[in-house]
Amino acid sequence: MSIRPLILVTNDDGISAPGIRSLIGVMNKIGNVIVIAPDSPQSAMSHAITINSTLHCNKIKIDDGPQIEYSCSGTPADCVKLGINEILDVKPDLCVSGINHGSNSSINVIYSGTMSAAIEATIEGVPAIGFSLLDYEWNANFNHIEKYIKEITLKALRNGIPNGTTLNVNFPNMDKGEIQGVKICRQAKAYWIEKFDKRTNPLGKEYYWLTGDFVNNDKNKDTDEFALKSGYISIVPVKHDFTDYDSISKIQDWKL
Amino acid sequence: MSIRPLILVTNDDGISAPGIRSLIGVMNKIGNVIVIAPDSPQSAMSHAITINSTLHCNKIKIDDGPQIEYSCSGTPADCVKLGINEILDVKPDLCVSGINHGSNSSINVIYSGTMSAAIEATIEGVPAIGFSLLDYEWNANFNHIEKYIKEITLKALRNGIPNGTTLNVNFPNMDKGEIQGVKICRQAKAYWIEKFDKRTNPLGKEYYWLTGDFVNNDKNKDTDEFALKSGYISIVPVKHDFTDYDSISKIQDWKL
Repeated sequence: MSIRPLILVTNDDGISAPGIRSLIGVMNKIGNVIVIAPDSPQSAMSHAITINSTLHCNKIKIDDGPQIEYSCSGTPADCVKLGINEILDVKPDLCVSGINHGSNSSINVIYSGTMSAAIEATIEGVPAIGFSLLDYEWNANFNHIEKYIKEITLKALRNGIPNGTTLNVNFPNMDKGEIQGVKICRQAKAYWIEKFDKRTNPLGKEYYWLTGDFVNNDKNKDTDEFALKSGYISIVPVKHDFTDYDSISKIQDWKL
Repeated sequence: MSIRPLILVTNDDGISAPGIRSLIGVMNKIGNVIVIAPDSPQSAMSHAITINSTLHCNKIKIDDGPQIEYSCSGTPADCVKLGINEILDVKPDLCVSGINHGSNSSINVIYSGTMSAAIEATIEGVPAIGFSLLDYEWNANFNHIEKYIKEITLKALRNGIPNGTTLNVNFPNMDKGEIQGVKICRQAKAYWIEKFDKRTNPLGKEYYWLTGDFVNNDKNKDTDEFALKSGYISIVPVKHDFTDYDSISKIQDWKL
């Protein structure tokens, strides 16, 4: 690592979102910051990449500070690929993504553009952390979690995130003083029950809005959901090897 | 399972792609088929879902056969959510996705719309299989792999796919008679090295095309890449719990 680490900052809410502005502020205290983030909201874009269309990337200035910033027309994963392989001359020491406006705990990790950006950095060999606050408001207050983000980031740089692992950090939606500490957890086995809101447009054609209810029947105390409900910051180490090793021998028994 | 299983068919190449037409043909021999697939190509859309826009879904007829078909304006994961929670009155016995025009082996699983559709079905409690052929041509020949797809599907229905597991089935790009059999594998630890093709548009503005080289330094013989190179059909059981359990204690040692 260089004396001041080179930190790539991205998100999925778009480069002007308050969450990423807060994250840039914290990272400016730790290292040299380059921001490469989507030029428009990319929530729930998961690990989508742009292969059938072109990408644009523009150097811009959003607010004061020493960071260098680029806005990119692609997805969060595109931003990381473009940043590491085209914009930057050297590999960053760390990639941080967020602060997401809303939860990326439990099954939400699979839909999350914030976490996919961080996971893409890990795939590219760059240690990475995704940060999310359980407050969906655009004007959410991020001030009181900045000290925790700084501490987690410094400890990650000092200790080294295990190879192939990405940290998924979620903050409970609580006021200053109410946060109980940090728990290292597993992803709760929760899911969404979708409800489609069916409507009719002015021309008489039916369309749908995706809505849903989050259901968590996983009541164990080692999960991110339990930690967050108990007032703790949850950190789930995430990997991108999707193999279900326990099932290999079961499928082998099918004698295909 | 009903006497004739209810099978939901989807893909990411779009409802008119030759790959899904081949898959529908096989499934019509096994069960009652309902097709809910994207109305346009959705390759590399991963597990993206549509939360900031509306969804349209239209009953259509593409070709002959007993299947019932809907084209949907959303992503592959949207199609599965809409199918299971809105279009169908009963939960399907199985969801199959594909046949994808191109590989979804190794790290490609994370970018794949085909596999994300299948994984979404698993999340919703429906056993699911994604099928892909290592031939990116629109006019790829799927005929000779149909007997394997039928056999794998029947064995999956008979034995039951383990809860929470999705099967990722890839076929080598080989002629009839050259396929050696089936291997149950783990995902190879391979990755893409991106190369951005930088161009200038007629107005003088720079833009990029994402391209890249696939690099596999994982030479072990238990991987999907090894199986496919050796002429075997690879089946990787995939899970959607992303927790890296081995890293939990390592991060706990950071004393956060």
